[in-house]
Amino acid sequence: MSDAIDSSKIIDGKAVAQKVEAEVSKTVAALKEKNIFPKLVTVLVGEDPASQMYVRMKHKACERVGILAEDCILPATITESELLNKIQALNADKTVSSILVQLPLPKHISAQTIMNAIDPKKDADGFHPFNMGNLLINEEGLVPCTPKGIIRLLEEYKIDVQGKNAVVVGHSNVVGKPMAAMLLNRNATVSVCHIFTKDLKSYTIEADILVIGVGVKHLIKEDMVKPGVVVFDVGINQDSTGTHGDVDFANVIHKASLITPVPGGVGPMTIAILMSHVVKCAETIGQ
Amino acid sequence: MSDAIDSSKIIDGKAVAQKVEAEVSKTVAALKEKNIFPKLVTVLVGEDPASQMYVRMKHKACERVGILAEDCILPATITESELLNKIQALNADKTVSSILVQLPLPKHISAQTIMNAIDPKKDADGFHPFNMGNLLINEEGLVPCTPKGIIRLLEEYKIDVQGKNAVVVGHSNVVGKPMAAMLLNRNATVSVCHIFTKDLKSYTIEADILVIGVGVKHLIKEDMVKPGVVVFDVGINQDSTGTHGDVDFANVIHKASLITPVPGGVGPMTIAILMSHVVKCAETIGQ
Repeated sequence: MSDAIDSSKIIDGKAVAQKVEAEVSKTVAALKEKNIFPKLVTVLVGEDPASQMYVRMKHKACERVGILAEDCILPATITESELLNKIQALNADKTVSSILVQLPLPKHISAQTIMNAIDPKKDADGFHPFNMGNLLINEEGLVPCTPKGIIRLLEEYKIDVQGKNAVVVGHSNVVGKPMAAMLLNRNATVSVCHIFTKDLKSYTIEADILVIGVGVKHLIKEDMVKPGVVVFDVGINQDSTGTHGDVDFANVIHKASLITPVPGGVGPMTIAILMSHVVKCAETIGQ
Repeated sequence: MSDAIDSSKIIDGKAVAQKVEAEVSKTVAALKEKNIFPKLVTVLVGEDPASQMYVRMKHKACERVGILAEDCILPATITESELLNKIQALNADKTVSSILVQLPLPKHISAQTIMNAIDPKKDADGFHPFNMGNLLINEEGLVPCTPKGIIRLLEEYKIDVQGKNAVVVGHSNVVGKPMAAMLLNRNATVSVCHIFTKDLKSYTIEADILVIGVGVKHLIKEDMVKPGVVVFDVGINQDSTGTHGDVDFANVIHKASLITPVPGGVGPMTIAILMSHVVKCAETIGQ
């Protein structure tokens, strides 16, 4: 059973996110002085409640930092070409700094086609291939927000990455692969594990830095990590007992030197980084 | 000392490259029937003898497969903006299918700026961020030729990648990082090691598939690999005794199940894949 928790080991994602948002607010104020008004347009197709909630959270963050937020709500019956037209109109609209298409999209629309249509300079999510490629070749600009948030946490907690054994569990386009690229750019030795990995523990047990985002409650147990590991838990698993990460937090914390909680760890950082990206877009396009 | 070598373990890169070139020749002939004449323009800045040799090798390969090859030789004193103008003219030239800028460029020119200026559809080398990003998100199109050549060798030798432990040594933009992405796209568990890795052997000894390209003669010794490993050696190290790979071939072969020699392994594949890319460009742009 888990003993008393040493709270000094908990990475306070909320506090760092507030710090990032305070920086963003300052930059927004300075931009407004120059008549530049950062604006995020969120594109929501259909009425998925989870997507609606995510969009609301992003709008609230915009409000907190002084970024204009505009809703573009479209019916689930919209065709791909109609949606492409909408994206092109937003690309052309000089008052729009950033465009965020909330995923998932209905099955009759190719998410990749839509992502590719967004002007890479307005791509606050960092999912456009051009931005992904710049990430891979260590010319990081707009990059996916969740891994970028983890990098910022590493910096805030003064964790030197170079030469460390980093293990990323999950190889999605949104978290695992960009996270691996960012850690490589900072000269960690990086291993990427996933559903096809034969002996997960043989990797996780060697990790100095462990990032996991696969959506399996408490996949990472205490016996799978080494003493002193720094753990970033991207998992969000809801059940009748509450919200759980991919890490068995209550037990793993005894071995970890630092660990993110769920909720309150990586999540708040993702949105704060998104805000910083909207501002970056506004600075780049001067609008 | 090394015993007699079992030649059945040697991956014959030359033979597979010839097979690829034969496929390319066939496609070129079919394209010519449709009045499409694939053409590669190589841009060489300055008079570096190694670069001149590489360009010559590519022109010879073009000749073998029926691709038109054109030299664009520019003085080392050319400015970045003059070179950019040249690239833009080649982008606009409908008779040009592919543009290859031979690296390295003189120090006063940003290679990245030049790469970014090449039309991604004419990017036979696969170095443009847009193409690199599509690689990262598993939408592989034009990708770097050396790792792509290794993937083709894996296919030809019927090595299933999914679930295997793959170790990539070197994290360059040209080989290591794109190789890691391609192996991940095929569901290998992938570790990337490099100059900052603290205990290289602890990684290489676990590899089912080992790719190395760092330019250190015989870095990988027999005691660093496990029995049955499949080894791809991208290293080319010249000294007074000849050309050597990054792998101590004569000894490692006794433990490996398959291994590429240097020369005659990965090298010929790189050029054959380049040829296939020129044809792919010609098919895409219809010229």
